[in-house]
Amino acid sequence: MFIQNTWYVAAWSHEIGADGFFARTITGIPVLMYRSADGTVVALEDRCCHRGAPLSLGRREGDDVRCLYHGLKFDCSGTCIEAPAQDRVPPQARVRSFAVVERHRWVWIWMGDAALADPDAIPDTHWLDDPDWRSLPGYIHYDVNYLLICDNLLDFSHLPFVHPTTLGGPESYAKIRPSVERLDNGVRVTRWTMDTDVPPFAAAVKAWPGKVDRWNIYDFTIPGILRMDSGMAPVGTGAHDGQRIDAAEFRGCQALTPETATSTHYFFGHPHNFAIDQPEVTRAIHQSIVEAFDEDRAIITAQQRNLALDPSFNMMAFAMDSALVQFRRIVERYLDAERQGLARSAV
Amino acid sequence: MFIQNTWYVAAWSHEIGADGFFARTITGIPVLMYRSADGTVVALEDRCCHRGAPLSLGRREGDDVRCLYHGLKFDCSGTCIEAPAQDRVPPQARVRSFAVVERHRWVWIWMGDAALADPDAIPDTHWLDDPDWRSLPGYIHYDVNYLLICDNLLDFSHLPFVHPTTLGGPESYAKIRPSVERLDNGVRVTRWTMDTDVPPFAAAVKAWPGKVDRWNIYDFTIPGILRMDSGMAPVGTGAHDGQRIDAAEFRGCQALTPETATSTHYFFGHPHNFAIDQPEVTRAIHQSIVEAFDEDRAIITAQQRNLALDPSFNMMAFAMDSALVQFRRIVERYLDAERQGLARSAV
Amino acid sequence: MFIQNTWYVAAWSHEIGADGFFARTITGIPVLMYRSADGTVVALEDRCCHRGAPLSLGRREGDDVRCLYHGLKFDCSGTCIEAPAQDRVPPQARVRSFAVVERHRWVWIWMGDAALADPDAIPDTHWLDDPDWRSLPGYIHYDVNYLLICDNLLDFSHLPFVHPTTLGGPESYAKIRPSVERLDNGVRVTRWTMDTDVPPFAAAVKAWPGKVDRWNIYDFTIPGILRMDSGMAPVGTGAHDGQRIDAAEFRGCQALTPETATSTHYFFGHPHNFAIDQPEVTRAIHQSIVEAFDEDRAIITAQQRNLALDPSFNMMAFAMDSALVQFRRIVERYLDAERQGLARSAV
Repeated sequence: MFIQNTWYVAAWSHEIGADGFFARTITGIPVLMYRSADGTVVALEDRCCHRGAPLSLGRREGDDVRCLYHGLKFDCSGTCIEAPAQDRVPPQARVRSFAVVERHRWVWIWMGDAALADPDAIPDTHWLDDPDWRSLPGYIHYDVNYLLICDNLLDFSHLPFVHPTTLGGPESYAKIRPSVERLDNGVRVTRWTMDTDVPPFAAAVKAWPGKVDRWNIYDFTIPGILRMDSGMAPVGTGAHDGQRIDAAEFRGCQALTPETATSTHYFFGHPHNFAIDQPEVTRAIHQSIVEAFDEDRAIITAQQRNLALDPSFNMMAFAMDSALVQFRRIVERYLDAERQGLARSAV
Repeated sequence: MFIQNTWYVAAWSHEIGADGFFARTITGIPVLMYRSADGTVVALEDRCCHRGAPLSLGRREGDDVRCLYHGLKFDCSGTCIEAPAQDRVPPQARVRSFAVVERHRWVWIWMGDAALADPDAIPDTHWLDDPDWRSLPGYIHYDVNYLLICDNLLDFSHLPFVHPTTLGGPESYAKIRPSVERLDNGVRVTRWTMDTDVPPFAAAVKAWPGKVDRWNIYDFTIPGILRMDSGMAPVGTGAHDGQRIDAAEFRGCQALTPETATSTHYFFGHPHNFAIDQPEVTRAIHQSIVEAFDEDRAIITAQQRNLALDPSFNMMAFAMDSALVQFRRIVERYLDAERQGLARSAV
Repeated sequence: MFIQNTWYVAAWSHEIGADGFFARTITGIPVLMYRSADGTVVALEDRCCHRGAPLSLGRREGDDVRCLYHGLKFDCSGTCIEAPAQDRVPPQARVRSFAVVERHRWVWIWMGDAALADPDAIPDTHWLDDPDWRSLPGYIHYDVNYLLICDNLLDFSHLPFVHPTTLGGPESYAKIRPSVERLDNGVRVTRWTMDTDVPPFAAAVKAWPGKVDRWNIYDFTIPGILRMDSGMAPVGTGAHDGQRIDAAEFRGCQALTPETATSTHYFFGHPHNFAIDQPEVTRAIHQSIVEAFDEDRAIITAQQRNLALDPSFNMMAFAMDSALVQFRRIVERYLDAERQGLARSAV
């Protein structure tokens, strides 16, 4: 149902403390996360191999985990190293451990074949902790399948309609046809809106002499990772030709991680590289994003209710759906490949 | 699952204001209702053909509707007349529109083939706005399949048991065998209870010299419409022979409209033609009806829970079930006819 | 899905008053219980044969029950003896009645073939009302299948991990291998822990000179009945050899009764035979048991959520699971026998 051999964002770094446990269900699998003594994040299946109890209700013993149902103890590789009532622990007694890489404040997890987990395949989101950029960590939870949120992010023509007072702008924004470029594992969307109004969230944090040229250029790649160069510059200052004079630039990083077939984790940050010594600007930008994403969640959740009323409903593709149709095909291609058991890295 | 080619009550007139939208799910289909500039009620599928978002979260633009997900615009026939990101709108881009007739404070909707929607087939409920009658508009929501409520309304022997302090009367009321007459699209039930106690709700609004002769004469027709001549007159004054001297007369109008397979809308009014210049009488009668219908809802919802525990449970028919067994057969006949694709008006 | 021909605990005696009705769903079947004039408990299917309404929303009429939907009246054998709208009641009009035996404050019910209901097969729990013993009645409700709770009770190695501050004791308790003896309809588990700490709940109600020898000896029999001789005596005073000098003895009685496939009734008492003139001791023991059983419920409910995430999850048997694996096999044997229609008493 979900792509296995790919990197998912499992958590923000700060969600996993030095002590204790952090539990989150990812692609339908309960996952226990914690930091070993050296700070490395460990990720194990949060379901004891014995009778299925959550290890996250258990106890840390150094870098090991004791299940507090019947006392089985697991090391951080997931191997059961102690079973109170017997001397020898059978070698097959273990829980799954997952490859994890912590990078730029995100904890990435590989739910599939660990042998295929190549850290070099993790998308670059360095803006999240680059000293030249500022952002705040965002997370919201959705009660819908992640693909409906992918759809949303792959078609920005919804901005003036869903987000008129936050990310939006004049409705003419929706008339722009973005260019959509096929990548191996997703799509690249490029949208330029020339000589347009400053959107509300940007007007609130920077003075502008008048109209702007605005861009949204992003890669949206499996499993559901958006990395975007966006921003605006005073009209006619050459932004489209590569000059960014007196611009407001952003590097939005967003990640959708399926929790179950009907729920999704959504991680996001929206780094900016201007006014980086003004925390109130960072907070204002973050707050606008949170408000906007709540607007998305309202319409997408209502959409989901409508779709649930009639499982036979067929969406009708319009021109603006080019990117999302391509992306859904790519997801299907990956799922097909995994179904066929091809031991092929999906990145 | 539900009869398509029939008139359902969709709303009370006052629920659909001059501005804005009113949304209600009917027979499993989300429906958007609003009034065009001339006051005519428009009913469209409340699910954008593009990606399924509810149009009711959108925006009025004159008599048109703008979906506030991606900005598609529909006219009041359901035709998409604008799609922001493209010049030409494909002709198949539309949502369903439903035939609607507003009559006597009820808004009737035809969920099936609009070509078959004959306004003359709408049951007469003129007492709801006849100046010689008075009533208040009632609505309650049920979490049960509508047929369980039809059953309830087709067998008034439940009155003394479910409604002892409202509609009821002595338990002998239940001993009366009503006559049940087969109509083309339902049944006519006639029940006379001679020389009986005044039921509590009527005793509260009118003085009575003693016992009464009481009648309940109603047509119950598909899809679930009850229209009733009921009342009582002092015993022996000839009501049964057609004289209604010093009587209290009512013309109950009730309509069951399936929301989903497990939930139902219930519209009702209980017009009376005495004391019409005393609003407190109208209010008292209405309040009694609301209390009584809440009593029905309690027992029917409990019944539904019991049925859900054992889907194989078979109800056992008794003599009192004559009307409801006939009505269920009529419903099946209509459903069969529609399944067989016979283009036959169901009225 | 559940064993039919066996005795289940349906209620504590005090739950069924002299007047009125008590309703509880048992093995998926709604059951109405009440006391006839002579105090005998009657148990009928709480679902009118007519249209399925709960009789428990009805009315007592002497030892009979009047359904307050349409007024059908049933005697305490479940036979319909009156139907308001007709003179003759058809002989097949009845609801199921269930064999019931009230014994030692528990009301036992037989959900299967009443002809097979042998009161002699009811497990002995006389300590619940023996004047030499004291206990308080306990009941909790679980939202899990009853077998997960059986599993819990069949492996006491969880005590130090789930109940460290109530029933527990040092973790070495979990290292003890109990002996497991096969009974015809269950298992007998015997666990001796020599020279061990007094568990917290016992330390709170009795003074101890030092370490103790502790025992838990119980029969766990279908459908889910635990009867336990447990306790502790000062170390080395010969408890293991049959001498119980200055001991604290208990006779725990526990019964699991499936409500539905995903919920369970849990009845329990924990009689003690020391300090029987000190109600505060009885209350303290009871309170410890309730706290401990809430601890069980927390971990088992979490386990259930984990299992629901992956129906294909296979539990892995360890040495400590000997008793529960045997018990599950016995349950399967009974279910198979009933599926094969063998008219065989399951006790």
